[in-house]
Amino acid sequence: MKKKNKKVNAAILIIGNEILSGRTQEKNVAFISNWLNLKCGISVEEVRIIPDEEKKIIKNTLLLSKKFNYVFTTGGIGPTHDDITAQSISKAFKVKYEYHKEAYQILEEYYGKKKFNDGRKKMAKMPRAAKLIYNPSSAAPGFMIKNVLSLPGVPSILNSMIENCKRFLVKGIKVHSKTINLYTVESNISKQLGLIQKKYNKFVEIGSYPFFRLGKIGVAVVTRSNSIAKLNNVNKDLIKLVKFKKIKILNI
Amino acid sequence: MKKKNKKVNAAILIIGNEILSGRTQEKNVAFISNWLNLKCGISVEEVRIIPDEEKKIIKNTLLLSKKFNYVFTTGGIGPTHDDITAQSISKAFKVKYEYHKEAYQILEEYYGKKKFNDGRKKMAKMPRAAKLIYNPSSAAPGFMIKNVLSLPGVPSILNSMIENCKRFLVKGIKVHSKTINLYTVESNISKQLGLIQKKYNKFVEIGSYPFFRLGKIGVAVVTRSNSIAKLNNVNKDLIKLVKFKKIKILNI
Repeated sequence: MKKKNKKVNAAILIIGNEILSGRTQEKNVAFISNWLNLKCGISVEEVRIIPDEEKKIIKNTLLLSKKFNYVFTTGGIGPTHDDITAQSISKAFKVKYEYHKEAYQILEEYYGKKKFNDGRKKMAKMPRAAKLIYNPSSAAPGFMIKNVLSLPGVPSILNSMIENCKRFLVKGIKVHSKTINLYTVESNISKQLGLIQKKYNKFVEIGSYPFFRLGKIGVAVVTRSNSIAKLNNVNKDLIKLVKFKKIKILNI
Repeated sequence: MKKKNKKVNAAILIIGNEILSGRTQEKNVAFISNWLNLKCGISVEEVRIIPDEEKKIIKNTLLLSKKFNYVFTTGGIGPTHDDITAQSISKAFKVKYEYHKEAYQILEEYYGKKKFNDGRKKMAKMPRAAKLIYNPSSAAPGFMIKNVLSLPGVPSILNSMIENCKRFLVKGIKVHSKTINLYTVESNISKQLGLIQKKYNKFVEIGSYPFFRLGKIGVAVVTRSNSIAKLNNVNKDLIKLVKFKKIKILNI
């Protein structure tokens, strides 16, 4: 994995009617985003969820591909008629949608010649010259073309494949983060948090998120920065504020 | 609630760094989408997740507001510095960001005059002439301006408010849906599913989703249509296919 001493960003494009309709709870965003941040220093800056429609897949793939360093798509690379991600991305980049020789071999070996039917063969079709993202759990590979990496929608399969994306990615600056969980309410500290945010301007991002735990109300104050030194400084200021306000700390 | 004998659609705009970074698992899309579909006959056709940045909130609000009948935003209407949804939407629609008289009264009564500090007062500020979406769980109301409805990000609070959105919405045609859960794999039925989809063309949408349950692999075949008659017909065809292939049905 190459390193770049600057910010690298990504978008996630979730393709699937079942997510939009609310039938299926979306679970891949948090997983991909955490992995990209922790393992690759890449920040996800936008997510879109769209239906299984060719025009929308093409339009959103091209748009996000221009706007971000990487685009991760999830869903629509299975064997059925509603799996149209691979052909849509081929159209988006104006390349042929065809059998990938290695993917075909992998799948033929996995299923055996007799059981390698049309539906299964479909999973070997992808944009010409795509690179394979190997799938250790169910064989059918994902693929990368230009800066777009296409993964399946089933979380357990996607999770098993994510490490195989690493070799295609350029590493960015890591965003460090600290969380202080407090037994208070947001409006008790909102004014001071605003002042601290102003002091550190764009170098530290301060977020505050209410939580309910074991019947108690609390606030998680999350700080994020490329600089560990600045992160430590802002957290010193936060601890001063907490002491001044006599707020009980749940954990740091 | 008025009725419209045609399709009504919506988009959801999730505003929040904590969702993008993967720190917090997104939960509102499935809830809002299910509620809109079941209770209002409204289909969610696009979701975007964006950071707490004014420019991006303005741009995406305007774009989605033009493209869809309704836009639901979640997040960024609390008391802290990173809650900038209300002022950003005011800017988007070029209206004043100011105290809403009734919202101010509701919050003042809820907290009591003494504890009604600046952070809490901030939650009474919204775009001029916005309509209130009442909040039975924590008082601070959401608001509607034009076709945009702004709700908080905390799922339990959002869930308690959703029924109060109903009076602002025009009801669309309901999308009916049936699910058949089968003990098989997608590639065993993908060819035939494709043919059945072709037969019913745009009148029925057929989706197939692999699942793993109690150690067994299965496929959920979900059919969706505005017409109950067509939905019944397509499901008869599916049952024929299942019998022909001798596939075990888990449930219908």
